[in-house]
Amino acid sequence: MLPRRYHKLVRVLEQRQPDLTVLLESVHKPHNLAAILRTCDAVGVLEAFAVHHNPEEILPFFSGTALGSEKWVFLHALPDIDTAIGSLQQRGFRVYAAHLSERAIAYDSVDFTQPSAILLGAEKWGVSDRALELVDAQIAIPMVGMVQSLNVSVAAATILFEARRQRQAAGLYDRVRLEPETYRRLLFEWSYP
Amino acid sequence: MLPRRYHKLVRVLEQRQPDLTVLLESVHKPHNLAAILRTCDAVGVLEAFAVHHNPEEILPFFSGTALGSEKWVFLHALPDIDTAIGSLQQRGFRVYAAHLSERAIAYDSVDFTQPSAILLGAEKWGVSDRALELVDAQIAIPMVGMVQSLNVSVAAATILFEARRQRQAAGLYDRVRLEPETYRRLLFEWSYP
Ligand SMILES: C[S@@+](CC[C@H](N)C(=O)[O-])C[C@H]1O[C@@H](n2cnc3c(N)ncnc32)[C@H](O)[C@@H]1O
Ligand SMILES: C[S@@+](CC[C@H](N)C(=O)[O-])C[C@H]1O[C@@H](n2cnc3c(N)ncnc32)[C@H](O)[C@@H]1O
Repeated sequence: MLPRRYHKLVRVLEQRQPDLTVLLESVHKPHNLAAILRTCDAVGVLEAFAVHHNPEEILPFFSGTALGSEKWVFLHALPDIDTAIGSLQQRGFRVYAAHLSERAIAYDSVDFTQPSAILLGAEKWGVSDRALELVDAQIAIPMVGMVQSLNVSVAAATILFEARRQRQAAGLYDRVRLEPETYRRLLFEWSYP
Repeated sequence: MLPRRYHKLVRVLEQRQPDLTVLLESVHKPHNLAAILRTCDAVGVLEAFAVHHNPEEILPFFSGTALGSEKWVFLHALPDIDTAIGSLQQRGFRVYAAHLSERAIAYDSVDFTQPSAILLGAEKWGVSDRALELVDAQIAIPMVGMVQSLNVSVAAATILFEARRQRQAAGLYDRVRLEPETYRRLLFEWSYP
């Protein structure tokens, strides 16, 4: 491998944020999945999660089989929304449902320097009622137009770049956040694909 | 029309920002165009602009013929990039090319409370060299991942929501920004489609 490539990998791993992630609930349009994973990569998300009634449908996006940003952001399939939210909470994440509702708080009032998972809902149906029961809070991006909702990859990006802004200000990109073990393993895997 | 609907239209027009816009250079994937116009509507963009070598290809997005957010954000076709950038500058806009380059400044260091047009480039080729010569400045969204660029609708949203944040703080959504004549005309057109 060229030294330049190697330094790029190192630089990227040094800025990965293991405590920032997304959980996709039945998001299924390939262009939306691709755009979301690309944004995840850009802000340093290490791994992402998906719950999907029919995982085969979005199989190319699960790590290993794809050629785009999916290669750099591990997408894990989880069997159901209870397991998904529960396991993230158990690992210390606060889970925020991106959902425009009366109960939602403004997305930029959340402290994203803490371990945070952003739950995004399906293109047509949004976040499920069950998920809304389980999450720690609902967050919304204010809108002043006629249309009722944003595209899901746009909503994801707006929230993730707000998280990036806060984490940047807090210096979270300035020190290595991965466990040494994870860091070494990934550097090896990415170097010798 | 129901009074509730009427009040919604009034509320939306009261928050429209005639001095914030996007200029799309050969952006042509329908899902990207749709996502961008939807975001424009959400942050209060009044009208948007496009330069396209083959306008017929994206005809459904030009005002009047479409059913989605295109209905609420006028998309104007302009013949070429010189005309497009020139006419915006003549109307007092600063034109910012969203373009990741050495010369670009960080998107969140720009003062978007001033009349601003954000130029976005084609999915594959990005902003043209000619456009880069003509714009007032290049702006970039910092990325810390492996992938080279964001999806174009994601880039548009990230910049537009930063503009919204600044304009919100400056009180620009708290007073009517449209000329009385434009306001009345649009209220009429939107009320009786
Ligand atoms: C197209 S929207 C779903 C719309 C669906 N009809 C609903 O009522 O929830 C897809 C997803 O994008 C996210 N989203 C869209 N606009 C949002 C906003 N303004 N604030 C927060 N999340 C948003 C949510 O996660 C939503 O489930
Ligand atoms: C997919 S990108 C084009 C990539 C193209 N290969 C290039 O080198 O410009 C489409 C458009 O999204 C915008 N864009 C994507 N990532 C960006 C970033 N990090 N900063 C600013 N604009 C970006 C630019 O307007 C770009 O022309």
